[in-house]
Amino acid sequence: MGMNGVLRPGHAAIRVLDLEPAVTYYIEVMGLIETARDDRGRVYLKAWDEHDHHSLVLREADSPGLDYMGFKVVDDATLDAMAAGLAARGVAIEAVPAGEHVGTGRRVRFRVPTGHAFELYAHKDIVGNGMPTMNPGIRPDALKGIAPVRLDHALMYGADLDGTVALFTEVLGFQVTESVAAGDTVIAAFLSCGAKVHDIAFVRQPADGKLHHIAFYVDSWDDVLRAADTIAANDVSHDLGPTRHGISRGQTVYCFDPSGNRNEVFTGGYMWYPDRPPLKWTADELPRALFIHERKLRDSFMSVVT
Amino acid sequence: MGMNGVLRPGHAAIRVLDLEPAVTYYIEVMGLIETARDDRGRVYLKAWDEHDHHSLVLREADSPGLDYMGFKVVDDATLDAMAAGLAARGVAIEAVPAGEHVGTGRRVRFRVPTGHAFELYAHKDIVGNGMPTMNPGIRPDALKGIAPVRLDHALMYGADLDGTVALFTEVLGFQVTESVAAGDTVIAAFLSCGAKVHDIAFVRQPADGKLHHIAFYVDSWDDVLRAADTIAANDVSHDLGPTRHGISRGQTVYCFDPSGNRNEVFTGGYMWYPDRPPLKWTADELPRALFIHERKLRDSFMSVVT
Amino acid sequence: MGMNGVLRPGHAAIRVLDLEPAVTYYIEVMGLIETARDDRGRVYLKAWDEHDHHSLVLREADSPGLDYMGFKVVDDATLDAMAAGLAARGVAIEAVPAGEHVGTGRRVRFRVPTGHAFELYAHKDIVGNGMPTMNPGIRPDALKGIAPVRLDHALMYGADLDGTVALFTEVLGFQVTESVAAGDTVIAAFLSCGAKVHDIAFVRQPADGKLHHIAFYVDSWDDVLRAADTIAANDVSHDLGPTRHGISRGQTVYCFDPSGNRNEVFTGGYMWYPDRPPLKWTADELPRALFIHERKLRDSFMSVVT
Amino acid sequence: MGMNGVLRPGHAAIRVLDLEPAVTYYIEVMGLIETARDDRGRVYLKAWDEHDHHSLVLREADSPGLDYMGFKVVDDATLDAMAAGLAARGVAIEAVPAGEHVGTGRRVRFRVPTGHAFELYAHKDIVGNGMPTMNPGIRPDALKGIAPVRLDHALMYGADLDGTVALFTEVLGFQVTESVAAGDTVIAAFLSCGAKVHDIAFVRQPADGKLHHIAFYVDSWDDVLRAADTIAANDVSHDLGPTRHGISRGQTVYCFDPSGNRNEVFTGGYMWYPDRPPLKWTADELPRALFIHERKLRDSFMSVVT
Repeated sequence: MGMNGVLRPGHAAIRVLDLEPAVTYYIEVMGLIETARDDRGRVYLKAWDEHDHHSLVLREADSPGLDYMGFKVVDDATLDAMAAGLAARGVAIEAVPAGEHVGTGRRVRFRVPTGHAFELYAHKDIVGNGMPTMNPGIRPDALKGIAPVRLDHALMYGADLDGTVALFTEVLGFQVTESVAAGDTVIAAFLSCGAKVHDIAFVRQPADGKLHHIAFYVDSWDDVLRAADTIAANDVSHDLGPTRHGISRGQTVYCFDPSGNRNEVFTGGYMWYPDRPPLKWTADELPRALFIHERKLRDSFMSVVT
Repeated sequence: MGMNGVLRPGHAAIRVLDLEPAVTYYIEVMGLIETARDDRGRVYLKAWDEHDHHSLVLREADSPGLDYMGFKVVDDATLDAMAAGLAARGVAIEAVPAGEHVGTGRRVRFRVPTGHAFELYAHKDIVGNGMPTMNPGIRPDALKGIAPVRLDHALMYGADLDGTVALFTEVLGFQVTESVAAGDTVIAAFLSCGAKVHDIAFVRQPADGKLHHIAFYVDSWDDVLRAADTIAANDVSHDLGPTRHGISRGQTVYCFDPSGNRNEVFTGGYMWYPDRPPLKWTADELPRALFIHERKLRDSFMSVVT
Repeated sequence: MGMNGVLRPGHAAIRVLDLEPAVTYYIEVMGLIETARDDRGRVYLKAWDEHDHHSLVLREADSPGLDYMGFKVVDDATLDAMAAGLAARGVAIEAVPAGEHVGTGRRVRFRVPTGHAFELYAHKDIVGNGMPTMNPGIRPDALKGIAPVRLDHALMYGADLDGTVALFTEVLGFQVTESVAAGDTVIAAFLSCGAKVHDIAFVRQPADGKLHHIAFYVDSWDDVLRAADTIAANDVSHDLGPTRHGISRGQTVYCFDPSGNRNEVFTGGYMWYPDRPPLKWTADELPRALFIHERKLRDSFMSVVT
Repeated sequence: MGMNGVLRPGHAAIRVLDLEPAVTYYIEVMGLIETARDDRGRVYLKAWDEHDHHSLVLREADSPGLDYMGFKVVDDATLDAMAAGLAARGVAIEAVPAGEHVGTGRRVRFRVPTGHAFELYAHKDIVGNGMPTMNPGIRPDALKGIAPVRLDHALMYGADLDGTVALFTEVLGFQVTESVAAGDTVIAAFLSCGAKVHDIAFVRQPADGKLHHIAFYVDSWDDVLRAADTIAANDVSHDLGPTRHGISRGQTVYCFDPSGNRNEVFTGGYMWYPDRPPLKWTADELPRALFIHERKLRDSFMSVVT
């Protein structure tokens, strides 16, 4: 949580081509937990160590991709203040009523210059992490698959990177932790709303509104190996990794859900503080910034988005 | 960083019986980096991934223990506001001038009900983490010994636990993340000023002003093993571990510096958010709360403090 | 496998006080797989990556402990030659007929000077490791609990250590890889029949025929942590660890089965070769030889045997 | 060590284009230890946990590649018996006198049908692993770079795979642990002379005498990450990984020495026993057999050899 009161990415709403194979994948392979379905056919899931009702919402549609991503803020006053800040900047606000998402309070939805829809909200039902809050254990029994601890971040593609970054930093209080620049042009920016090395990231690309990946966090490099083994054992489409990013220093493996939405299983990264010097990368070092071991670009990683 | 603007534990000032063996230990075994000595004979050290000038200050004295611990706040306004808040509560404030610590701005020092001295400050010279901020690497060359990434937290003993916790939560904006209670009496409290599972912790014990341990953070369970191997290879006094705490779920090994100050090498723990339910432990579960594998108390761990 | 043709520890036959709680523990916590029960009420289990029919046999009895341990040899000729070698040395041989153990060929049983019964055998049904031998995977689905890859070794207590070691080295072709001596008296000996750092070990103690522990092998230090977490989550009696031995350099955690038989979950250790210099420890270094991090003896570890 | 008395790969003799950059790489990056230079300009190195005098010999030449690979056998009688066995099969034997390699006894050199030169020898000076054999530690101080524990295996390309495999299995007592076949044609064979999942491997390719890689063993998946980080930090040419092989189940990262010889840093793999069912892979599953996470062939990995 930064000073401005944005806590974290609270949910990603994803389109999938066929609902049940997607649900099976996210439960059996990714290891999320289904918490609800609604009368619009949406399926709600959470990672085990998230206490809030859900962090992923699946909707069947004709094309994959991201409908919107929601950030939880600390309280209603912050929600109202940020909505006012967005409005003052001329950003159109859509009020989504409480209950539109199961177990979730009112949401403030808006579109950023790169074409992506984001939401802010202050309330979501707390359903717990499967262990008591009195004398808990280390992890719940009967986790399946990769079983990340949380939704961690997302990376998106769009044209007006500067406009979106300005909105996140100037209105919502995010900070740029790392960036890549070609000369004076920032081509990628990684932003934190608190202590994580990134909560959201954007890459400058001509097509707006595109999703590169949503990332789930696991606790260790060994968990990344187990995730990669699980991806393989289930014959899930693998993208790349295990490897380490130069940006964030985090360790990672990528795969695709059955509809082609890219998922990252991520760990590591340093703790961000607002007085920590942001890191900058030059475009010629992009291969190392992305994959510090391989130090080569991968066309499929760069070009495939949903 | 919590909403109130306290960033993190910025330094611990420790008394050691003989300066040079202590410096040798903290450099060669713990793997800290010496950044300065001052005309009062104090030695300043930092962990490699801290950008600020120092996080540990050693002073030769007749008895080991903690002189004071300092928390960095986000800016001068926060520093002044917190000093005012403390004063309003009747806490005596000592103004320590800029430069009294090498590379450090003015500090606000005060004593909490458990008898420990704490400081707040807003400025410390940024000396970097040994890598460039443009196109950096993963870690600097030539690290020695355990080489933690940061000073992480400290645990202290004193009688008026409630008074100290109230000061930290009500004036400084910390939150209690986990606690242990015997009936209605809280006997241990773990507090966060941001996203870490704990930045400071207190145990109710009759003798005031005591230090149980200062903790340094490493990145993985494998690093905890390497730390334990390094402790052994250097014939450093070992306390316990590798093991896992129930409280925090973190993994750990403990040893003693040459003067008997306990050091923890810690990793893991979950990410704290202010909307996460605090965890509570009952006194009968204290063995499991402390050491979830062994589930037995260790007298030496409980009773030896400096 | 050493030159003499002994492959490995093939089974341990253990007495338990109540059969079903023992079976539940070995399946649900230790993560072995039940492969058979016989008309004498014995339960046969194996670790997942063992291809032979079983490696652990449980029998209900009034006291816990080890009935016997069996080593598989490479073929019938070796079996006969070793039986002849034992007989030539005056060791009484008991011929156990094929089928007395489910899926097992004839066994040659004998008692060593420390009072323990051992067996040799050349045939056991191959049941596989749960994966095809054509285009296999990394591990089978649906493993439970700790899920070690194999029975690894055992450590036993008895008086005539020299006599037992002589039998193993001179007749069966084992080699002493590490030993501990008090002056000229060897007080502990670790023996390999092939490439492992130990397949069997003996400690000189007055009571004969005692079992200190049987050990199961896992693949990594992270697996040792998960094992310790599993021990804790199931409230299984914990003995010590995670830690590292000086002897073998292996990493370990110990617990007790419901009848009090000590189990080790072990990983690491170097690869043994017959031209590798055996390592020797002096009795004053026993604490470091046993637990290189803690470097202190533990009474319970030393004195509790079955 | 198998029943026939071959212990392990004892040395690889490699050609490098420029000696000093190669030596610097193998010492500073790979973390081997220089043990000697001879009057022919060859440099001898060993991995830290090898007790024998050397396991890698570098020679400056106009092209990179493998001069020969040597296997240590258990004694002179075995050496003579195997030389006789080779001769009986019509294989030409070259007797290399003791001392031709520093610290090494007489060697028996021969060429296999795939065009590679191999050697057998029974004696090499034992120089130790940098720690005493009485009351040793866990690892020596001051290791550099990747610091593997041993030379592990090599993989070679050549046309007459069947002929070479027959020689290794029928004369030298190796066993095929895993193989890949296209119909009835074996296109890759992995062979063990003892307990390792492979000590040598061959791939059927038209050009004879080619080296695909030599492999060094590290103790853990975390060490593979550190190796990859070290490769990156030193800007060494990276090939692929970290990843896991289907064949062997081992974890790995590959890079190139400054002359283009491929090096593998390998860990894991199961323990081989002669009664363990060999694993077979079909050619259509080759991508998974090679890289079980990625499940795609890599042209550069397949085609670049020295």
